[in-house]
Amino acid sequence: MEGIQVIGFDADDTLWVNETYFLETEQKLRLLLAPYVDGETVSAELFRTESRNMPLYGYGVKAYILSVLETAICITGGKVPANVLEQILALGKEQLTKPVELLDGVEETLNALVGRYRLIVVTKGDLLDQEQKLRRSGIEHLFHHVEIMSDKTDREYRLLLKHLDIRPEEFLMIGNSVRSDILPPLELGSYAVHIPYHTTWEHEKVDEPVVNPRFFTVDSLWDIISLLP
Amino acid sequence: MEGIQVIGFDADDTLWVNETYFLETEQKLRLLLAPYVDGETVSAELFRTESRNMPLYGYGVKAYILSVLETAICITGGKVPANVLEQILALGKEQLTKPVELLDGVEETLNALVGRYRLIVVTKGDLLDQEQKLRRSGIEHLFHHVEIMSDKTDREYRLLLKHLDIRPEEFLMIGNSVRSDILPPLELGSYAVHIPYHTTWEHEKVDEPVVNPRFFTVDSLWDIISLLP
Repeated sequence: MEGIQVIGFDADDTLWVNETYFLETEQKLRLLLAPYVDGETVSAELFRTESRNMPLYGYGVKAYILSVLETAICITGGKVPANVLEQILALGKEQLTKPVELLDGVEETLNALVGRYRLIVVTKGDLLDQEQKLRRSGIEHLFHHVEIMSDKTDREYRLLLKHLDIRPEEFLMIGNSVRSDILPPLELGSYAVHIPYHTTWEHEKVDEPVVNPRFFTVDSLWDIISLLP
Repeated sequence: MEGIQVIGFDADDTLWVNETYFLETEQKLRLLLAPYVDGETVSAELFRTESRNMPLYGYGVKAYILSVLETAICITGGKVPANVLEQILALGKEQLTKPVELLDGVEETLNALVGRYRLIVVTKGDLLDQEQKLRRSGIEHLFHHVEIMSDKTDREYRLLLKHLDIRPEEFLMIGNSVRSDILPPLELGSYAVHIPYHTTWEHEKVDEPVVNPRFFTVDSLWDIISLLP
């Protein structure tokens, strides 16, 4: 990895806990809808609704809660009472105000790298929510730039490199999603490090193994220190 | 306005119709809730709910629909049936897929300015929604840069000027909201042109008149041509 100038960090489930909170909300939804329909059906229908709404709603908690409400109404044949839907709205607000829980080794790793590389956050999801999480995280000052994208495809990464005014081989992306953090940067000629998180959202899963000389997998963020020159 | 290098355009209700669609949705909501509560009360309570949720939800259609649902449940004492809430969700989707209707003179004005100035879009709201509107608008190619902010205060404009690497007096901002498009740029030492739109969202209203030598008001976008050197 000679020549790396900028390191991009995915945020959700790479810097801090995220997917866990969505799963907690989903569990609470299953309990709320238990009088009407079994949990497995709730989860399966929610995933279908989310996927269908993705092009319109995008990523993030607000999009998620809108899909949860739609699922709850549809799956109960309109029998779900308004007070349950009110509780779902409250679950969304609760998730938006959760404290930011940094993953192991995040602060140590960033402190070891700051000054040696330009560190940036590269995340998708809801603009306001991601900004607020970054402010609450206590690590915002370590980053040179924060890029919040509506999606993470080749297109957005190409624009990012142009914006940073660097060549692809000067960029390293680190994240937990092969689909969003690994494949697009590799495609452009950048480096990528995958740090698997213990739960991965179905939507982000990729079947084929990644084979690329610029690709690495590590167990935790601190391990990237030994990969860098 | 000697020395202007970059012109920033607000998008909603400056480049294209926006507030009108929110008002249409509000009218439909009043009809849907007419069996339970009078229209005036619906509108007043919706505005209160939106304002209360603003710090958490931010701007945009998804935030709006979540507040509409909360209002509908709360104001009917939970009596609103699920199928009405389903119709509200559908109103949100309808609003997110509306064709983009450019305001009078927008294309002519941008075409007259492109090449002479760096033209940028400076908008707040939902990231994905604003990106999609810009793509559908047919004028995206005329802009050098698109900045979508979670809010439009001094702080965000200061970051924008830093990012554009220009001095405040080299920037002109144009928009329909005194609060979001006019006051912050003037505060930083930039120029600002106000183009009032026939409806202004309550949240954006400002009471005091603006008095500043770098401030202008015009009736339509085309009028800015004669203000520029």
